[in-house]
Amino acid sequence: MKQGTRTNTVIDAIQRKINSRALKPGEKLPSIRGFAATMQVSPSTVVEAYDRLAADGTIYARRGAGFYVAPLIQPFAVAKVGPELDRAVDPFWVSRQSLDAATDALKPGCGWLPADWMPHNQMRQALRSVGRAEDALLADYGSTKGADNLRRLLARQFIDEGLNTGPDQILLTPSGTQAIDLICRFLLRPGDTVLVDDPCYFNFQALLRAHQVNFVTVPYGKNGPDVDQFEQALIQHKPSLYITNSALHNPTGATLSPQVAHKILNLATTHDMVIIEDDIFAAFEPAPSPRLVAMDGLDRVIRVGSFSKTLSASVRCGYIVARPDWIEALVDLQVATNFGGPSPLAAELIYSVLSSGSYRKHMEALRSRLDTCRSEVAAKLAALGIEPWLMPRGGFYLWCSLPGGVDSADLAKAALAGSMVLAPGNVFSVPQSMGGFMRFNVSQMQDPQVCETLERVLRTVRSGIG
Amino acid sequence: MKQGTRTNTVIDAIQRKINSRALKPGEKLPSIRGFAATMQVSPSTVVEAYDRLAADGTIYARRGAGFYVAPLIQPFAVAKVGPELDRAVDPFWVSRQSLDAATDALKPGCGWLPADWMPHNQMRQALRSVGRAEDALLADYGSTKGADNLRRLLARQFIDEGLNTGPDQILLTPSGTQAIDLICRFLLRPGDTVLVDDPCYFNFQALLRAHQVNFVTVPYGKNGPDVDQFEQALIQHKPSLYITNSALHNPTGATLSPQVAHKILNLATTHDMVIIEDDIFAAFEPAPSPRLVAMDGLDRVIRVGSFSKTLSASVRCGYIVARPDWIEALVDLQVATNFGGPSPLAAELIYSVLSSGSYRKHMEALRSRLDTCRSEVAAKLAALGIEPWLMPRGGFYLWCSLPGGVDSADLAKAALAGSMVLAPGNVFSVPQSMGGFMRFNVSQMQDPQVCETLERVLRTVRSGIG
Repeated sequence: MKQGTRTNTVIDAIQRKINSRALKPGEKLPSIRGFAATMQVSPSTVVEAYDRLAADGTIYARRGAGFYVAPLIQPFAVAKVGPELDRAVDPFWVSRQSLDAATDALKPGCGWLPADWMPHNQMRQALRSVGRAEDALLADYGSTKGADNLRRLLARQFIDEGLNTGPDQILLTPSGTQAIDLICRFLLRPGDTVLVDDPCYFNFQALLRAHQVNFVTVPYGKNGPDVDQFEQALIQHKPSLYITNSALHNPTGATLSPQVAHKILNLATTHDMVIIEDDIFAAFEPAPSPRLVAMDGLDRVIRVGSFSKTLSASVRCGYIVARPDWIEALVDLQVATNFGGPSPLAAELIYSVLSSGSYRKHMEALRSRLDTCRSEVAAKLAALGIEPWLMPRGGFYLWCSLPGGVDSADLAKAALAGSMVLAPGNVFSVPQSMGGFMRFNVSQMQDPQVCETLERVLRTVRSGIG
Repeated sequence: MKQGTRTNTVIDAIQRKINSRALKPGEKLPSIRGFAATMQVSPSTVVEAYDRLAADGTIYARRGAGFYVAPLIQPFAVAKVGPELDRAVDPFWVSRQSLDAATDALKPGCGWLPADWMPHNQMRQALRSVGRAEDALLADYGSTKGADNLRRLLARQFIDEGLNTGPDQILLTPSGTQAIDLICRFLLRPGDTVLVDDPCYFNFQALLRAHQVNFVTVPYGKNGPDVDQFEQALIQHKPSLYITNSALHNPTGATLSPQVAHKILNLATTHDMVIIEDDIFAAFEPAPSPRLVAMDGLDRVIRVGSFSKTLSASVRCGYIVARPDWIEALVDLQVATNFGGPSPLAAELIYSVLSSGSYRKHMEALRSRLDTCRSEVAAKLAALGIEPWLMPRGGFYLWCSLPGGVDSADLAKAALAGSMVLAPGNVFSVPQSMGGFMRFNVSQMQDPQVCETLERVLRTVRSGIG
C-alpha cells in the first residue's frame, strides 16, 4: 500500500468515528502511537493524517496536549454535503457571484430582471400610500398566516389557473425560497430521497442539500419530465418528494403538457409522493399552462410562488398553497422559526401594487418586451454558434447549447475574469450532465458589451481546446 | 397483561417499525391475523391498535385493502416532538393567540409595545425617503450579507457595548428568530443537547424543538444562571449550545452580573460549548450590562438581535455577529434557504430610522415612559396580591408570582374567555416548574380593563380552588 493510500485510510477511519459520534466534539483523538498500532501503520502516517484533518478544521491541536475533535464537528457547510463539485459550477458560488456582483458587472447569468424593468412607479405609489397607513401596519408583527387582503387577492387569481381555494389555504412567507424551505422542514428528514429534474433550478439543489437528502433525477424534456424514467425512478428509489416548475421551467423555459402532467400526477398518487410546484414564473406565461396543483386539487401537490421576479425582490414575500391540515402545521413551524410570516409592510406593498389598475398593463407590456428581446438575443447568440434548446413561450431565460466542445464551466470562469457572471449548465444538473449548456437571461443582455465579452471569451476558450 | 397494555405494545411495535423505516410511507401494514400471531395477542387487540394509529394519522385504511403507513410518516408537528404539554401552556398556542388576537383584545401577555409607542414619525419619514430612492433598492435582491450601511452602523454601536468588530462579521437576516434558526441549522443536529435557562423565552423552546434537540435547564437567578448547577449540567449532559438573553433576560428582566458572566464563559470554554446571546432587549437598558460576547471577543459566543421591539416588527430585520469563518458558512446557508438576507427595503428603512437624529431622543423618552409605567403597574398588581420577582432595570416585562395556589395556566385559560391574552409561567419553563408565575407586559396594561379583567378572573380561579 502506498503512503498516500495509508494516510487516506487513517483519515477515513477517524472521519467515520466522528460521523458516527464514536468521537464527539471536544473529545481527544487516539494517541499517535496507539492509533498507529491499531491501524498497523507507522506513527508518521498518523501524524500526516492528523495534520491534514487539522488543516481542514475537522480536528485541532492543543499545545502539548494532543489532537481534539473540533468543537463543532460538522458546522453545516452545505456545499460539503454533496459530491465535490467543480467550484465553477457550485450553486453557491454562482448565487453569491450574482448577488454580490458590482453594480456595473454584466450579469447574463443572473435570475432577475433589470431594476428599471420592474413596476417602480406602482411601487413608489404604494410606498407613499403605506406612509399614511395606521401605526399598527408599520409597527406590529401581523397575523400568523399573513395579510388577509393579499391572501384573498391570491385566492381569486388562482381561480384563473383552475385552482379553487380559499384564503385559509394560503400561508404567506418571507420569500419563495423560504416557502420551499418550510415545506421541506415539514416533510423531509435527513436521508430521504427527493426527485428533481435534470436540469433544475440550482437553488433547489442547494436548499435540499441543507436538508441532507439524497437526490434522484429524471431528464426534463420539451413537454416535461421523461415519463418512463419518472416511473422507474419512483419504483426504484421511492422518493418522498418531487420539486419542479411547471409554468416556464427553470432553466429550460419548457412547459408541461397536459398528457405528461396527468401521467406524472397518477404516478405520484400510485407511489404516494408529494409534489412541490414552484410557479414563480407563472405571471410571465402568455396564458396559464397545465398545472399539477389544479389537476390534483391540493391533495398531494403544494403550490409555492413569490413576487420577486415580477414585482420586487427587495420587498420580499412568498406564499404556500396547500391542504388545510398541512397549512396549520406549517403555521406552527413558521411561528417557531420566524415568529410569524412575512413583513406586514411588505405584504401591504405587494397587495397595493398587485391591486393597482396599472399593474396588469405593466405585465402585458413586460411580456411583449421580453418576447422581442428573446428573439433579438437568440439571433445574436446564433451568430456565435450558441443555439437555444427551445424557444420558450415566455419569461427571460434561454437554455442554450454551446458550440462543439466548449465546456460551460470553463466559459463561466473565463467570463468572470472579464466581470461577467454566467450560469453554466452543470450548476443546474445534479448528475453533472449539462456541461455543454448555458442559461442566458435575455433581459440582462441589452448592453452590447455582453455579446462582445461573450464572443471574446468564447474565442479564448475554444483556442484553448483547439 | 391487561387489554390496554397489550394494545399499547402493538402500537409501540408498529411505531418502532415506522420510526426505523422498516415500514415506509405508503407501505402496507402486516395483516391483522398475521401480526396478532407475531405479537401473540388476539386479532381484536391488533384491530384496536390499528384503529388508534389511524385516528392519530400515523396510518390509514384503504377501503377493502387493509392499513397503510400514512404518506408522510412524520410531517413535522413541532409540538409533538417534546413532552405533551398542557395546551394552555403550549408555546405555539400562546404565540398564535397573541399574534392572531383581535385588534381590540387585551394583550398583557404579548411580547411587544403598543403600535403607538413605536417611532412612527421616524418610520413615516423613512418611507417617504425610500420612495425617492433609486430603482435598484426597490427591485433587487441585495447583497448576501445585507446592506453595508446598516452593518457599518451596527458595528459602531457595538463598540459602546465593548464589542470590537467590523461589518464583515455581521450578517443581516430577515428576523431575529431567523438569525437564531440559521445558527441552529449550522450548529445543531437532531439529538444534540441544548442548555436553556429556567425560565427562558418560550420561542427558544419552540424553535429548538423544530431542531429535534434535547433540553437541559438551569435555574435563572437574579444575577444570571445558577453557576454550580450550570457546571453540573455541562459535566453531566455535555450540551453543545447555550442560548440566553444577557441584557434584560426574558421573561425575568434580570441582568447578568460580571462575576456570573465570567464564570459562565470559563465553563463554556472548558466544556467546549457555543453560546448564543440574544440581546434583543439591549436598547431598553439604562446602560449596557456585561455581555458574554464582549468578554469572549467573538470566539465561541454569537450575538443575535433585531429591531422588532424598539423600531418595528412589521419592517423586520435581524442580525448575527460571529466569527468570520462562521459568518461565511452562514451566508451559504442563508443563500440556500432564503436566497439572500433581509429585504433591502427593510434594511434601508431600519438604517434610516436608526441614523435619524431624533431616534436617540425617542428611545430616551421610551425608557423613561417604561420606568413610570413599570412602577404604576407593579403597584396595581400588588393590590391584587401579584408580586414582581424583581424590579428590572428596564424593558417592558414584569415576572410575577401569583397569590398562593393560583396556577397561571388556569388563569390564562379563564382570561382568554374574557378576550385577554396572558403569558403563563410554564410557557417559559421546559421542566414546567413555573406554574406559580406570570409574565406581564407593562406597556400593554394602560387600559384599566386589563386590571379589572385580571381581578375578576383571579377571583373566579381562586374561588375554584377554595
